[in-house]
Parts: sequence; C-alpha cells; structure tokens
Amino acid sequence: MAQPQLLECFANPQPDRAYQIEHVAEEFTSLCPKTGHPDFGTIVLRYAPAGLCVELKSLKLYYQSYRNDGIFYEAVTNRIADDLAAAMKPRWMVVETQWKGRGGIYSVIRVEVGDVPHGPVGHVA
Amino acid sequence: MAQPQLLECFANPQPDRAYQIEHVAEEFTSLCPKTGHPDFGTIVLRYAPAGLCVELKSLKLYYQSYRNDGIFYEAVTNRIADDLAAAMKPRWMVVETQWKGRGGIYSVIRVEVGDVPHGPVGHVA
Amino acid sequence: MAQPQLLECFANPQPDRAYQIEHVAEEFTSLCPKTGHPDFGTIVLRYAPAGLCVELKSLKLYYQSYRNDGIFYEAVTNRIADDLAAAMKPRWMVVETQWKGRGGIYSVIRVEVGDVPHGPVGHVA
Amino acid sequence: MAQPQLLECFANPQPDRAYQIEHVAEEFTSLCPKTGHPDFGTIVLRYAPAGLCVELKSLKLYYQSYRNDGIFYEAVTNRIADDLAAAMKPRWMVVETQWKGRGGIYSVIRVEVGDVPHGPVGHVA
Amino acid sequence: MAQPQLLECFANPQPDRAYQIEHVAEEFTSLCPKTGHPDFGTIVLRYAPAGLCVELKSLKLYYQSYRNDGIFYEAVTNRIADDLAAAMKPRWMVVETQWKGRGGIYSVIRVEVGDVPHGPVGHVA
Amino acid sequence: MAQPQLLECFANPQPDRAYQIEHVAEEFTSLCPKTGHPDFGTIVLRYAPAGLCVELKSLKLYYQSYRNDGIFYEAVTNRIADDLAAAMKPRWMVVETQWKGRGGIYSVIRVEVGDVPHGPVGHVA
Amino acid sequence: MAQPQLLECFANPQPDRAYQIEHVAEEFTSLCPKTGHPDFGTIVLRYAPAGLCVELKSLKLYYQSYRNDGIFYEAVTNRIADDLAAAMKPRWMVVETQWKGRGGIYSVIRVEVGDVPHGPVGHVA
Amino acid sequence: MAQPQLLECFANPQPDRAYQIEHVAEEFTSLCPKTGHPDFGTIVLRYAPAGLCVELKSLKLYYQSYRNDGIFYEAVTNRIADDLAAAMKPRWMVVETQWKGRGGIYSVIRVEVGDVPHGPVGHVA
Amino acid sequence: MAQPQLLECFANPQPDRAYQIEHVAEEFTSLCPKTGHPDFGTIVLRYAPAGLCVELKSLKLYYQSYRNDGIFYEAVTNRIADDLAAAMKPRWMVVETQWKGRGGIYSVIRVEVGDVPHGPVGHVA
Amino acid sequence: MAQPQLLECFANPQPDRAYQIEHVAEEFTSLCPKTGHPDFGTIVLRYAPAGLCVELKSLKLYYQSYRNDGIFYEAVTNRIADDLAAAMKPRWMVVETQWKGRGGIYSVIRVEVGDVPHGPVGHVA
Repeated sequence: MAQPQLLECFANPQPDRAYQIEHVAEEFTSLCPKTGHPDFGTIVLRYAPAGLCVELKSLKLYYQSYRNDGIFYEAVTNRIADDLAAAMKPRWMVVETQWKGRGGIYSVIRVEVGDVPHGPVGHVA
Repeated sequence: MAQPQLLECFANPQPDRAYQIEHVAEEFTSLCPKTGHPDFGTIVLRYAPAGLCVELKSLKLYYQSYRNDGIFYEAVTNRIADDLAAAMKPRWMVVETQWKGRGGIYSVIRVEVGDVPHGPVGHVA
Repeated sequence: MAQPQLLECFANPQPDRAYQIEHVAEEFTSLCPKTGHPDFGTIVLRYAPAGLCVELKSLKLYYQSYRNDGIFYEAVTNRIADDLAAAMKPRWMVVETQWKGRGGIYSVIRVEVGDVPHGPVGHVA
Repeated sequence: MAQPQLLECFANPQPDRAYQIEHVAEEFTSLCPKTGHPDFGTIVLRYAPAGLCVELKSLKLYYQSYRNDGIFYEAVTNRIADDLAAAMKPRWMVVETQWKGRGGIYSVIRVEVGDVPHGPVGHVA
Repeated sequence: MAQPQLLECFANPQPDRAYQIEHVAEEFTSLCPKTGHPDFGTIVLRYAPAGLCVELKSLKLYYQSYRNDGIFYEAVTNRIADDLAAAMKPRWMVVETQWKGRGGIYSVIRVEVGDVPHGPVGHVA
Repeated sequence: MAQPQLLECFANPQPDRAYQIEHVAEEFTSLCPKTGHPDFGTIVLRYAPAGLCVELKSLKLYYQSYRNDGIFYEAVTNRIADDLAAAMKPRWMVVETQWKGRGGIYSVIRVEVGDVPHGPVGHVA
Repeated sequence: MAQPQLLECFANPQPDRAYQIEHVAEEFTSLCPKTGHPDFGTIVLRYAPAGLCVELKSLKLYYQSYRNDGIFYEAVTNRIADDLAAAMKPRWMVVETQWKGRGGIYSVIRVEVGDVPHGPVGHVA
Repeated sequence: MAQPQLLECFANPQPDRAYQIEHVAEEFTSLCPKTGHPDFGTIVLRYAPAGLCVELKSLKLYYQSYRNDGIFYEAVTNRIADDLAAAMKPRWMVVETQWKGRGGIYSVIRVEVGDVPHGPVGHVA
Repeated sequence: MAQPQLLECFANPQPDRAYQIEHVAEEFTSLCPKTGHPDFGTIVLRYAPAGLCVELKSLKLYYQSYRNDGIFYEAVTNRIADDLAAAMKPRWMVVETQWKGRGGIYSVIRVEVGDVPHGPVGHVA
Repeated sequence: MAQPQLLECFANPQPDRAYQIEHVAEEFTSLCPKTGHPDFGTIVLRYAPAGLCVELKSLKLYYQSYRNDGIFYEAVTNRIADDLAAAMKPRWMVVETQWKGRGGIYSVIRVEVGDVPHGPVGHVA
C-alpha cells in the first residue's frame, strides 16, 4: 500500500528565490490492477520549492511503497502529485510518469499543480 | 474495415484536473489504396481527458482493425482523430502519424482537435 | 531542368481542418553551378493544406528533375517553395534544405510561405 | 572549504552588447554532508556579461575548492550562483547542477539570477 | 591576422523574402593568447539576408585566416559577428562559437545582431 | 499463406567470386498463432551467392505473404531459411529475425545454412 | 520465492539444426538480501536448443517469481542458468544479467553452460 | 558511363609496410536499370597498398562517373572492385556498398580481393 | 592514501564454474602528481572468480581511497590490478581505466592478469 | 616542421607486464600539400610499452608541431608511427589517423608496428 507518510521534508535553504528542482527516478514498479502483472516506469518530479523540499531518500522509499500495489497509470500519477503537493506545498510542480511498452504502446502521463512557468524556467533541458 | 466500435472508455479518475495523457503505438500497419502494399507507421495520441479516458487494450484492437484497410496517410490520420474525439470528447487532442519511408520520403501527418496548449503543457518531452 | 509541371495534387480530404503534413526527402541531388560537382541534401516540406495536397510520387519525380541542374542552395530552396506554393496554395508552408558538408561547412536554408504558426503546430517533433 | 576569492574577472570586451556565455564543467565533485560519500556532477553556467566576465581557469579552481566540502545539492547550487553573481554582477545568469544518480534517482537543480530571457537568447542549443 | 577583406558577398536572389540561412563550420582553429596553444571550435552562423549573402568559399577562407591568431573566445565571437554584419548588413544574424573542452570545461559564446525572431524562425532545427 | 513460389532469382553476375550480400527488411509482420495478435519484426538475410541471387522485389512480396499467417518465431525463421536456401542454393546463408518486444521480452532467432565464415567475411559491419 | 516449475517448454521444431535463440527481458526486479531495497536489471538468455525450447510467457512468469526474493547478483545469475539448463537441456546456453547502478557502480554477470561457439554463431549482433 | 580511366594512382610512400587505408564515400548515386530511378549509397574502400595508392580526388571523380549509369547493386560493387584492383594491384582490398532503403529493404554488398586479414588489421573500427 | 585493506571478499557461490563478473565504476577521481589537479575516470573490472568475489561496497570504498592521492594513470591502473589480484586470486582479471580528456587527449590503460579468454567469454558486450 | 625531438619518455613503471596504453588526440591539424588548406583529424595511438612510455604533454606538443606542415594522410601516419617507435621502442604499436571529410570522402589510415595481438588485447573497446 502506497505510504505518503514516508515522505519527509526539510526547510528550503533559499525560500525567497523561485528556483527549480528535478528528481528523475528510473526504477519505479507497481502492479497492473487488471492482470496483476508488474508495470515499470520512470517518474519525473519537477518543482519550485516554497518553504519545504522533499528529502531524497524518503522520496525513494515512498516510490518503493507502490511495489505491490495494483493501480492504473492515470491514478498513480495523480496520486503521487497529490501526495507530494500535500507534503511540500510547492510554488508549482510537475509529475510525469513514463511507462515501458505494453502491447506495443508506450504511455506517458503528466500532471501539473499550480502555475507552471513556460520556457526555460519550466523545463530543465 | 476500421472498427471505431472497438474503442472502450473508462471514467477519468480526475475529471476536474486538466492533465495530459500520451500513448505511442509503434506497430501500426494499413495498406496503400493505390498499390495494395502495406504501410507501416507509429501513431502518437496525446490528449487532456474530460470525462472519459480511452482504455489501452481497446485502443490497440482499434488500431489493429486497420490492418487490411486500403487508406491514405491523410485520411487515416483524420479518421483516427475523428473516431477518438467522438468516443472520448477530450478537452483537446493531437493525433500524429509517422510513416516509414516510401521512395526515400518520410511523412508525418498531424491533426489537432480543440485548443491544444503550447509550451510544456502541450508537449510531453 | 527542374519541371514543376510534374507536381500533381489531389483534393484535401479535410479542407475545413487546419492540420499539418510533413514530407522529408533524404535523396535530393543537384549540381553546383560553379564547379559542376554534385550536391546532396535533404528536403523538408511542412505545410497546412487548403484545398489541395501534393501527391507523394509526383513530389519525388519533381525533386528528381533537379538531378542535372546547376543551381545554388539559396536559389533551389526558394524555387521549390515557389513551385509548391503555386501548385498547392497552402494555408502556410515551410521548405528547409539541409546540405552535406562542403569544405567542412554544413548549410541549411529555410523559406517560409504564409503565416507559419509557432509552437507545436508549426513544428512536428 | 569553497573559496569564492579564487574567482577572477576580466573586463568584458563588448560591454554594450547583450551577448551570452556558457561554461559547462563536467568534473565537479563535493561530499554528501550526511554520509561523507562523494557526489559527482556537471555545472552549467550561462550568463550575459555586464562589465565583467569570469576568467576560465579561476572558475575551474573555484569549482575544485568544493572537493572536500560536505554540502547538499540545493545549497551548493544556490551558493555558486550567489558567489558568481557577486563577482560578476551579470545582466542575468543561470546556474544548473546535474548530478549522477543516487539510489536510482538523478537530480537537477536550477537557479536563475536576474531577468533570464526566454527563447533562443536564454538557451544555447 | 584575421582578414575580413577575404569575405565576398553575392546579391540575395530573393531580397524581398525574409528567409533564413545557416552555415555550420566544424573546423575552426585559433590560438590561445595566454598559452599559445591551439583552440578548436565550431562556428554556427545563422542569418536572414537583406541585399547580400556571404559566399561560402570566402567564408571558409575568412575563418582560416584566424589559424595563427592569438585571440580569446569572447573576442573572436564578437569580431566575427562584427565583420559579417559589416559585410552583409543582414536583417538579423546569430554567431555562436562552440569550443572543445579546456580543463574539463566546455564553452559556448553567442552573439546576436539585430532583431532575431524567436520560435521556429529563429532556430533551424 | 506464405508463398515461396513468389521468390524469383537472377543469375549471379560474378559466380566465381565468393562475395557477400545482405538485405535487411524492417517491415515484416505475421500473426501470433496463439493469440491472433500481429507480430512485427526485422528480417536480416546475409549470404554468399553461388549461381543465383534473389531478386529484391520478389523477396519483398515473399515476406509480405506472411502477413496473415499464424506462425511462431522459431518456425518462421527456419521456414524462411529453408525457402531461400531451396530457391538460391547459396554458398552459405544466415537468416536472423529480430522481434518487437512482447511482455517486456525482445527475441532474436538466427539460423545458419552451410559453412558461414567467421570474422569480417561473415559479418557486414 | 523463485519458481522454476513455472518454466514450460515446447518441442523444438527443428531439432536437427544448430540454430540460436535470444530472449532479452528488460524488466527484471528482485531484492537486495542485505538492505531489502529492490534491484533492477536486464536478463539476456541466448541458447541453441536441443529437443526443447522455453515458452516465452512461462519465461516471463518465471522471472517475475523473483520479485520479492532477496538474492545476490552472482547467485541469481547462476540460479537462472541452472533452472533453464535443467528445463531445456540446450546444446549450449549463456545467461547474462545487467544491473542498474548501485553507488555509481554498474555490474554484469555472465554464466555459460556447455560449449558456447565464438564468433558470429555465439553472438547475435 | 563509368570511367575507370579517371582513376589516378601515386607511389606508396611506404611500400615495404603492410599498412591499411580506408576511404568512405557517402555521396554515391547511380540509376536503377529497371526503373530508371536514382539509387543512393555509401562506398567503403579498405585496402593495403602494394606499390600504388589511389589519389583521393580521382577516386571521387571515378565514383561520380556512375551518376547516370543504370547498373544493379551487385554489378556496380563487383565492377568498382575490379577497376580499383586493376589500377592499384593492392595486397588486399574490400569494397562494400551500403544502399538507402528500397521498399523497406536496406542492402549491403561486400566484395573482397586477395587475402583480407581478420581481426584488427582487417577492420578499421 | 589508497587502502587495499578496505577490500572485502566473500566466498564464490559457484567456485566450480568459470563464469564472469564485471563492475564498471564511473566515479573515480585521483590527483595528478605533477599539477595537483584532479583527474576523473571510469574503472572497468572484469574477472572470473576462483574461490573469492570482491564485495561491491568495499570495492567502492577502496576506489574512494584514491581521492586525494597524486598518482599517474599507468601507476594507478597497475596498482588496482595488483591489489585486486592479491585480494581475490581470480582465474583471470582485466582492469581498464578510461580517463576524461586532458589537453584534448583521452587515455585508456588496460592491464590483464592471468590468461584472459578471447571472444565472447573475455568481453561482456 | 614536425619535431620528433619534442617527444619525451619516462620509465615504464611495470616493464615486466605486457599491458596496453591508448591516447586519443582529437585536435590534430596539418596542411594539405597540394592546396595549402588545413586538414583536421583524430590520432589514435595504442601500444604496449617495453622500457619507456611517452609523456602525455610532450605527445601533445609533438602533434602540434605539424600545424603548419604540408603533408599527405599516408605520409603523416607513417611518420608519426616511425617517430614514436624510435622514441619508445614499444612491444607493439598501432597509429590510426581518422580525417574529417574532404569532397564527401572520409579517410582512415592505420599503421601497425611489431606484432599486434588480436582480440581483446589488441583493441581497447
């Protein structure tokens, strides 16, 4: 069962500056709720911190807590976004999940929270 | 004969949030209506769901129903966009077909439905 | 001698929709008018059709008609754009020629016709 | 201990022109303040000089001065930005740190100083 | 000694159209004025011609004239931009120099002349 | 139904020289005999002709004749090798089939006929 | 608990020919027996069948049975090789496991069973 | 008409040493003798000179002399090998032609003359 | 000071089988003994265990112990090989160090211990 | 004028072990003796030292001494091999020069000195 209580935050060392953080986790796995077979994906988290930043090891453990959950692509992406937004209350946030192919189809789900700036601020190249 | 009735939808788990879904199908094939030879391509579907999401396996079967259809690049792209728009009524949608070379020429057709946002929202990088 | 009369068009199956077509031809060759040596390049054509679409095989034959023409990069790019614009009268069009290196220098020429939209509409990624 | 006094500047040879400079340093290393293990990353500095440009060798020595410092990703990125902004007083500046993976997660931190232009000026492709 | 008098221009065959030309020269070399060691780089020239276009072979010879000059990255980029702007008087122009690494640091300098359009016009992809 | 009678051969123009021919067909499709779903793959044919060479268009039509056949990876690879060996009687031959992933597993089957030389003769790099 | 009884075999359709089969599974995961954290890897199986071939779906299920096992890299590679050799009794076999980085170190383990031929027979390029 | 008399040789500066030369020409074009359509390919020449080396510009002109010839892949490869062997009488030689796809099939023809060494001597990596 | 005593070994779980292990460490750094500047490289260790395997975390700590050592490329490669051979007494071993460029020159040093098999056994592809 | 006297050697720290060293210099330039135009290339040196190793900075200065020499590809490759063999007297040595394209043709020259081992010893992958 996914465990948002695993998420730990630390105080943003520069709360007055609108800078940007990206964490790309390449080793996410959960289960397909229909077939029970495992799904594999990459989770991109990109955000501008307000008062809090998510601690990296706790983020890893939180992602690992989905390992034996049966959950759809759309649901898991929205849930991760909700859990992280609740924990950090960022200025803005993007969660994008990129999934290994199933039946020759590759899927990407992208959820935005708050007012994501466009152009070079909104995307780390 | 292409069969739009194969498309099945499920209720969007987050109908109030304008998030984005992309499905890339690398194994599309139809027939050239002039020569009868097979065409091969990739279909990119990118959309923001309103009340409904397309179910992934039904999308695969719908694409497979073109296997023995003779249909031009421009026509198949517009038809897929029309069928999916009718089934899902999304906030906005992009259908892009990318074709293997014929006579040394590689073609891409792109159809947009509704008001596709530009910048990071409109394109999953 | 380049032969625009080789270009054939067919009626756009969706004249009311502002969609986009791209044809990338990797096998273009003409001659350098100064040295007589062959030039090799790729021609990217990207356009939004109005009433007419260019037929793919006729486009290939039209490009082949430059094979023994001596013509500069800038001139051939503008000429192809003019010939295609005259034949199709598109909503907008981009012609981009990309040339193999000469003397360690690689050249690209890009001509736009009409009002090319910026962002995801103007560029098939 | 990081040593901003190592930074040396020279007079911008074109102070009236708003041009842009990028230095990508692929060999940055510091220590994790929690575990003491080394971190490895790439530092991208991009800026438009006003009256001063940072001298390249002094920039290298300044980066090397972090070699035995224990400092978090967020802190080191903000500190480098502050030190460079104090030394050069640029028109605008971006500092982006890209880190080797830890526990399967790859991080990027990006700090902007001043009014970074969007589009082709703000990003050297 | 760099020799701008080597630059030759020819009349733009389409002076009424705001099209775009790019020349990428991968074989630039000059000398470091401090150490005397050779520097190696790529020069990207991108411009919209007004009445004149630069002739390709003369551009190559002009670049070669820097072979034994001691000159800094920032200075050579601004000088090339000034020489080319003086010779061609383009609608707009970008000169970007990309340098092989020195001490593990890779540098890029970018100078713009005139009003460079953003989006697909300002950048040949 | 696969149709080996579609294969046409022409007389090897250099029957006394042990040279080598490779044809890579990227657009192969057949059906899975268990599920009826389409399989997609690439067929590499590499051989040294004796008296006969396979004609390229007939090879394409022969591959297309598998389009609606239900046949396993191992069987189709051996069958293609047998049909081609019967038609051409080459000095030696390799048939390698490379398949798009199924359930996250990518398969390659390789059949050799005759005495395939090792080293640079046996493999076109 | 890994379950070799999940492995199913079918009769080799060409038992008299020494051909070669490769299955690359990109979605393997098990647990580190020391830390309990998940490991992720790719399993390459390459073999020449004797009387039996492993059935693809059963191979996938067998690999999935390691999902909650704590087992070292060296042990899991040898165990998979032993289980597959017992089930298929191939002419020869290679099992290679390629692991995502841990602490900046990427590992590969390779076990051979029987007399693996060198050169183009032993390696599908 | 292909013109072997265009080939010029110069005396090998090190006739006593069995060293190796490779020339890769990416801009070869001839015509298909059946359809009259142009073919495009890359010609790799690799050889160990005896008394003579082929002069690079003459090799380019010789390749250009095929521009309007109708000739099959197999024939042109053997003919180039014969012409070059007659002109240079090398210790050994490889001619490999790599062709742009036709009908989704990519072809490579490889002819060896003399005793081509295997391993690192026979192949420049 | 490099500390070979940090190396820990565990008993090979399959001492009777000649299998192969590779560990690629991308985050090695030491100091240049002439200039004191840091060097950065990747260390490839490939070996066939006899009775002992090196423990992965101890290998990482051993590599980290070079962080403040001044030592030449050739010396550090031979020393790592000697330390690991003394600790594990493998059937055979390869240590290869790959270094970031210095002055535009990239270096690789490779030391073999024992009788390294050639072909697919000696190299994990 | 090329200056072999610039080459400095140091005593091999492991003269009893047949290990291997590779230096890849990406910034070589000389002049074409026919046209006077600059040539650009990469020089790969690979050798097994006997009593002496070439010092890296002296190797760089030696390569730089060709900057204003007019010399053919074949001649410069043989000369570098002769100079380095005379200076180091290695167990064996390979010098390979890889040149930027001229007239659409890319050249590689490879000279071996002594008995170069084949397989993994003779080639650092």
